[in-house]
Amino acid sequence: MLTLDFHPTGRHFLQIPGPSPVPDRILRAMSLPTIDHRGPEFGPLGLKVLDGIRQVFKTRHPVIIYPASGTGAWEAALSNTLSAGDKVLMYETGHFASLWNKMALRLGLVPEFLAPQGTDEHLPGAPGWRHGVRADLIEERLRKDTAHEIKAVCVVHNETSTGVTSDIASVRKAIDAARHPALLLVDSISGLASADFRHDEWGVDVTVSGSQKGLMLPPGISFNAVSPKALEAMKTARLPRSFWAWDEIVEMNKDGYWPYTPNTNLLYGLAESLDMILGEGLDNVFARHQRWGAGVRTAVNAWGLPIQCDDPALYSPVLTGVITPQGVDADAVRRLIHERFDLSLGTGLGKLKGRMFRMGHLGDSNDLTLIAMVAAVEMGLRLSGVKLAGSGVQASMEYFAGHPAGTALRAAA
Amino acid sequence: MLTLDFHPTGRHFLQIPGPSPVPDRILRAMSLPTIDHRGPEFGPLGLKVLDGIRQVFKTRHPVIIYPASGTGAWEAALSNTLSAGDKVLMYETGHFASLWNKMALRLGLVPEFLAPQGTDEHLPGAPGWRHGVRADLIEERLRKDTAHEIKAVCVVHNETSTGVTSDIASVRKAIDAARHPALLLVDSISGLASADFRHDEWGVDVTVSGSQKGLMLPPGISFNAVSPKALEAMKTARLPRSFWAWDEIVEMNKDGYWPYTPNTNLLYGLAESLDMILGEGLDNVFARHQRWGAGVRTAVNAWGLPIQCDDPALYSPVLTGVITPQGVDADAVRRLIHERFDLSLGTGLGKLKGRMFRMGHLGDSNDLTLIAMVAAVEMGLRLSGVKLAGSGVQASMEYFAGHPAGTALRAAA
Amino acid sequence: MLTLDFHPTGRHFLQIPGPSPVPDRILRAMSLPTIDHRGPEFGPLGLKVLDGIRQVFKTRHPVIIYPASGTGAWEAALSNTLSAGDKVLMYETGHFASLWNKMALRLGLVPEFLAPQGTDEHLPGAPGWRHGVRADLIEERLRKDTAHEIKAVCVVHNETSTGVTSDIASVRKAIDAARHPALLLVDSISGLASADFRHDEWGVDVTVSGSQKGLMLPPGISFNAVSPKALEAMKTARLPRSFWAWDEIVEMNKDGYWPYTPNTNLLYGLAESLDMILGEGLDNVFARHQRWGAGVRTAVNAWGLPIQCDDPALYSPVLTGVITPQGVDADAVRRLIHERFDLSLGTGLGKLKGRMFRMGHLGDSNDLTLIAMVAAVEMGLRLSGVKLAGSGVQASMEYFAGHPAGTALRAAA
Amino acid sequence: MLTLDFHPTGRHFLQIPGPSPVPDRILRAMSLPTIDHRGPEFGPLGLKVLDGIRQVFKTRHPVIIYPASGTGAWEAALSNTLSAGDKVLMYETGHFASLWNKMALRLGLVPEFLAPQGTDEHLPGAPGWRHGVRADLIEERLRKDTAHEIKAVCVVHNETSTGVTSDIASVRKAIDAARHPALLLVDSISGLASADFRHDEWGVDVTVSGSQKGLMLPPGISFNAVSPKALEAMKTARLPRSFWAWDEIVEMNKDGYWPYTPNTNLLYGLAESLDMILGEGLDNVFARHQRWGAGVRTAVNAWGLPIQCDDPALYSPVLTGVITPQGVDADAVRRLIHERFDLSLGTGLGKLKGRMFRMGHLGDSNDLTLIAMVAAVEMGLRLSGVKLAGSGVQASMEYFAGHPAGTALRAAA
Repeated sequence: MLTLDFHPTGRHFLQIPGPSPVPDRILRAMSLPTIDHRGPEFGPLGLKVLDGIRQVFKTRHPVIIYPASGTGAWEAALSNTLSAGDKVLMYETGHFASLWNKMALRLGLVPEFLAPQGTDEHLPGAPGWRHGVRADLIEERLRKDTAHEIKAVCVVHNETSTGVTSDIASVRKAIDAARHPALLLVDSISGLASADFRHDEWGVDVTVSGSQKGLMLPPGISFNAVSPKALEAMKTARLPRSFWAWDEIVEMNKDGYWPYTPNTNLLYGLAESLDMILGEGLDNVFARHQRWGAGVRTAVNAWGLPIQCDDPALYSPVLTGVITPQGVDADAVRRLIHERFDLSLGTGLGKLKGRMFRMGHLGDSNDLTLIAMVAAVEMGLRLSGVKLAGSGVQASMEYFAGHPAGTALRAAA
Repeated sequence: MLTLDFHPTGRHFLQIPGPSPVPDRILRAMSLPTIDHRGPEFGPLGLKVLDGIRQVFKTRHPVIIYPASGTGAWEAALSNTLSAGDKVLMYETGHFASLWNKMALRLGLVPEFLAPQGTDEHLPGAPGWRHGVRADLIEERLRKDTAHEIKAVCVVHNETSTGVTSDIASVRKAIDAARHPALLLVDSISGLASADFRHDEWGVDVTVSGSQKGLMLPPGISFNAVSPKALEAMKTARLPRSFWAWDEIVEMNKDGYWPYTPNTNLLYGLAESLDMILGEGLDNVFARHQRWGAGVRTAVNAWGLPIQCDDPALYSPVLTGVITPQGVDADAVRRLIHERFDLSLGTGLGKLKGRMFRMGHLGDSNDLTLIAMVAAVEMGLRLSGVKLAGSGVQASMEYFAGHPAGTALRAAA
Repeated sequence: MLTLDFHPTGRHFLQIPGPSPVPDRILRAMSLPTIDHRGPEFGPLGLKVLDGIRQVFKTRHPVIIYPASGTGAWEAALSNTLSAGDKVLMYETGHFASLWNKMALRLGLVPEFLAPQGTDEHLPGAPGWRHGVRADLIEERLRKDTAHEIKAVCVVHNETSTGVTSDIASVRKAIDAARHPALLLVDSISGLASADFRHDEWGVDVTVSGSQKGLMLPPGISFNAVSPKALEAMKTARLPRSFWAWDEIVEMNKDGYWPYTPNTNLLYGLAESLDMILGEGLDNVFARHQRWGAGVRTAVNAWGLPIQCDDPALYSPVLTGVITPQGVDADAVRRLIHERFDLSLGTGLGKLKGRMFRMGHLGDSNDLTLIAMVAAVEMGLRLSGVKLAGSGVQASMEYFAGHPAGTALRAAA
Repeated sequence: MLTLDFHPTGRHFLQIPGPSPVPDRILRAMSLPTIDHRGPEFGPLGLKVLDGIRQVFKTRHPVIIYPASGTGAWEAALSNTLSAGDKVLMYETGHFASLWNKMALRLGLVPEFLAPQGTDEHLPGAPGWRHGVRADLIEERLRKDTAHEIKAVCVVHNETSTGVTSDIASVRKAIDAARHPALLLVDSISGLASADFRHDEWGVDVTVSGSQKGLMLPPGISFNAVSPKALEAMKTARLPRSFWAWDEIVEMNKDGYWPYTPNTNLLYGLAESLDMILGEGLDNVFARHQRWGAGVRTAVNAWGLPIQCDDPALYSPVLTGVITPQGVDADAVRRLIHERFDLSLGTGLGKLKGRMFRMGHLGDSNDLTLIAMVAAVEMGLRLSGVKLAGSGVQASMEYFAGHPAGTALRAAA
């Protein structure tokens, strides 16, 4: 007797920026019977997903797949490359950058948390949380580190708490400009497979990602894409590690197997997801998310509410943060929308609690899903007494009707 | 397009001792749409599974559910309770005990690996691998540790590589008899929910388990059941930890949530599994596995082949290891059975490689499934040229026909 | 390899007035393994669905479940109660009434097809297709039939081609007022379980229905609810019948079985559907559809387009027909909406071809689904060059935001 | 909440000769969301299944797919080709032939029911039920019908109640030898896609089949393959028909659509089934069933029990009927096997009630499934006190081990 029955009528609209809505195809693939992870059928499955995921990361080097959710892959990136007491330079782009910083502390590293100074009219307490990583500040800091005590630079590609997508290539250029040997570790948990990402070309040493965002899977598997330089760093890194250790996994992956039990049914889902994403073509996938983001932001602009990301060049194609007017509890709005319209929005995290909400535009979605989300938010804001400058729904409809899918990149150009 | 298609006709027989065959009910529950792990529907789901899993462990204390496979829960047990350089007493019951020992080494602990001396006619290289944990040896060793340098005793409850179920209560008695303060850490990854297990009554401090055995789920979530003494030890344990750290999880679990993204769809499966297991009643579940094991061993005896477990009191209700005659490559037999009869058996691991195979009798099975397994093995052995003393299939059929389900405990008494 | 893959990204919006969107719960229930339709597990399943479906029809008398789609149940109603050459009085409410009339002709009956005279500014060729059954015309006709040659009166409850829900109780009153012995046969294929229907109270002799509308199942099973008078008529009815014959089915249904192979997996779905519908409560189900219909019609009114149903008292709670302006090909609009927004609308059938489209508001839906449908139609109309008086989306949003679910009946009162 | 939960542990063994065990692939395909049967995605699906099913019937002419179970397709075959009072020659091969005869009577036809005379030691009351159609008797009868009053000859290809597969080509030859114009109508409900069948080559005019046997689908759709001669006969056939009428369906099928609502989700399943069957190759499918049948019959022979089919040339590849010794109630044995071993067998039907049971060897099966069935039957017979000459399980194991799949045809040759 299946006792899970969350929604009495109609589909729930899961519009948080991950876990994203999972396509039925993937849910069905995941419900196939579990097979022997040491048997002859497993190796080809393993090789297939390992090959496909490398294409998504745009790397020719190993990608480790962990049978663990994304937070674990953060830990793996640090513990495979660093030793207790190592200095790492992290950059405060938002809540997830802050959590990664906190993890580094717990693991015995010495993180320095770079954050731009300044103030913001809407969110005075979080000056950096509306912008991307400033590569100039990183370069400046690294130039001062003449002893090369900083072993790694850690930045978040697509900051899920704010909807800002940082320019990772510029960070690599900054490190190189400073002639600094630090590793570049990047969290693209919510960027991968939605926003353009190029592990090899951008010179990333470890990219961390997870299953439950652009890959459109349930949570439960996560990734480390690792450069040859990262593999070299592993040999001298002294943080204790066993479950997260890359070496045995890379070795056994050559035949498509893992040293310990993998999450077989999520790998079925990953195989299906890769078929969908690579079949559509990564550039088409990116263009699709760019178009979705543009359509949703049109609505926010029409309402006259500020977008959390203050730099239009860095708008995330995955989610849009919306700042509520002073005095309006964003979480109360979210709860009302959930109760009345069966739609989930992302909450304001950490320093943004109560001041904003996040609209996800990723996963198994389409124009109508997103227009429905905009409608739910508009109704929820009005029911909460928020005065809106205009109709976001009309603006989104005009955008989506006026910009047919498949031409988004050209339209944006 | 679903590209996974392993078996052209008929269902594969997954008779490895885990991952176990997953009931359709659970596969279907897992295919429900992913929900927001911060939303109002999630808390009740979290509380339900946390309450149910405590009943399965027979504990009133916290059970941590990790979105990671079982090997991770081993690491969690060690890293939450110990510090670099700590001595731990481990006991060599087989391959998984050896792997746990190896992990302790990698994490910077100082494990002492107890193994009984002696020899064995069939498997001279692995004297302890046909027996259970000898509590007297543990007591003896702890009595010598007058400085209480040993911080933990680590034993495996149901050794999946051999099919021996050790007496955990006796280990607790040995520790107490030695008046030693060491923690008792137990791996019951393959024992839980199939073999009798009592976390509180047996005085276990940390029990490690996983989803893909008695709980009949795919791999991907794992458990630490923790005693108050273990929670106390956590406060001074200095191994670095973040993903595995108990404290934040225990705190957030009070409301049914997790500090980071849980494996939502596997929790759906766990909810369904708990409904099935607790609905049937744990004692009935244990009796069912005892009966299954007895029926399968009857076949092995009829063939005249030695059972890996040399102590009838410790026969595992989960799996039966079968030693092949000298000169017969057990893995060649397994491959032949897989190719000809689409049935997977467990391989001989570590020191047992090529010398034995393992027949699983757990998960979504019934009398006919097990008789089919016995038939496949019998055909495979004969096709491999192994002389058998008699028909195992006939023996199993007589056992199952003569011992109706539901009366197994009485019949065994 | 699953080769069905219709929609590359996001869920298709199936907004035709049936087949309706099927809830995941039902799709999963239907995917359980088929069981023996003569075995001991089947009887309880059969009795459960037979009992539940009687509650949905509001009858204490037999309901026949056919393993055939709805058109078959039309034939069953006629062939079990009538003989070749029998006169039947049918009433032209739209396309489906016309098809039933055509079927009666094919079966050798002599149908008389009542249709009100008159004209209509928008649809001059189909005067009756914007109204309900006029009981006064039926009474008038029956009074003239003093020889009682008319053996049955056949009317459609919820005309799926127009969105008009006729008053069935009034037809029964008309027959009684005329003191005429004719049977009352009613098609409620698209009305049952969405619109109020009372087989016993309204004195219906045979109600015909199907699975793919209010019951939210895929097509494939259909129903005849039969009164004692209909069962009596069966004894003298001479149309040849075997598959459709009620007698053997009613007899075997007493134990929950069928004389020939039933559609087992659709019965699983029916069991699940009945749990959902009866669990929610029929009155709540009706109120939900009334509210949905009101919200959608608000949009049509805002656009300034005529609703196909010209009698507000008879607006269907299941679907709304929208007449396009002269010169606008409704099917071209539908195609554009399908291509651009992945949403299906119902076409104009028969005499209405190209002049209108139909918006379904039934099945697994919710406020946001319906607002998305309204948005798609609004975008499609605008892209087709149709001038709209105002925004239907805004109107619908105001309606749904202003009329919370659960208070619809009171709000309507 | 899914309330269907038939089997507490392990998979039920559905070994009746249909509905056959449905592969997971097909169950998953059937659980895809229902689409618009008038929309642009539907036509290609319709054309695909219509093309594939013609290949399975081995015909270049139309195959009608009904959204109704198999009994309906019997009715369709008769009502499209015959008129009230027409004489038809039917042949008593068993229970299903008898039911078809009964249906012909109900529909107003005048069937003559040919049955060979004689007696049988085991089943004296049913002389023809252990043999196939005798073409000589048909030829003899047709020669006497010099006025050509007999309009059709109706025979069953694979008689599901007995396990006898008749020689259809010989019946065609008999009709031709008698220079008689009668149509040849054949029921291959349980033969199609398991036993060799050639609609065009054998000169069949209408072949009736269903989904729930060799096609491995749940029940709910059925088929009429129709020759040009049958389509010609339709024009003068006067039995009333509407739902079953071929003409409109054939016409609309040209574009992949149906005149009324098809059973969409079963068509998904059919598409998947056709991919599996045609992908494997029909000859391989037939050889597979031949091998399965041979392996099962080996067991029956070892037990020393008579096989229902008394002509080895006509053994069905789909099922094997087993006659129980005098005094042993076959249904009591079946019930015991169901209760103790969760396996369903086919009952003795009609004249065979209580005297035999039927073992199905079709659908989603493999060697181990069938050996498990044999083991269940052997245990059940022994528990019922039946003395067996030897072990059927050993015999089957020897057969299957000695005859690897893929070489069955050669081995049989």
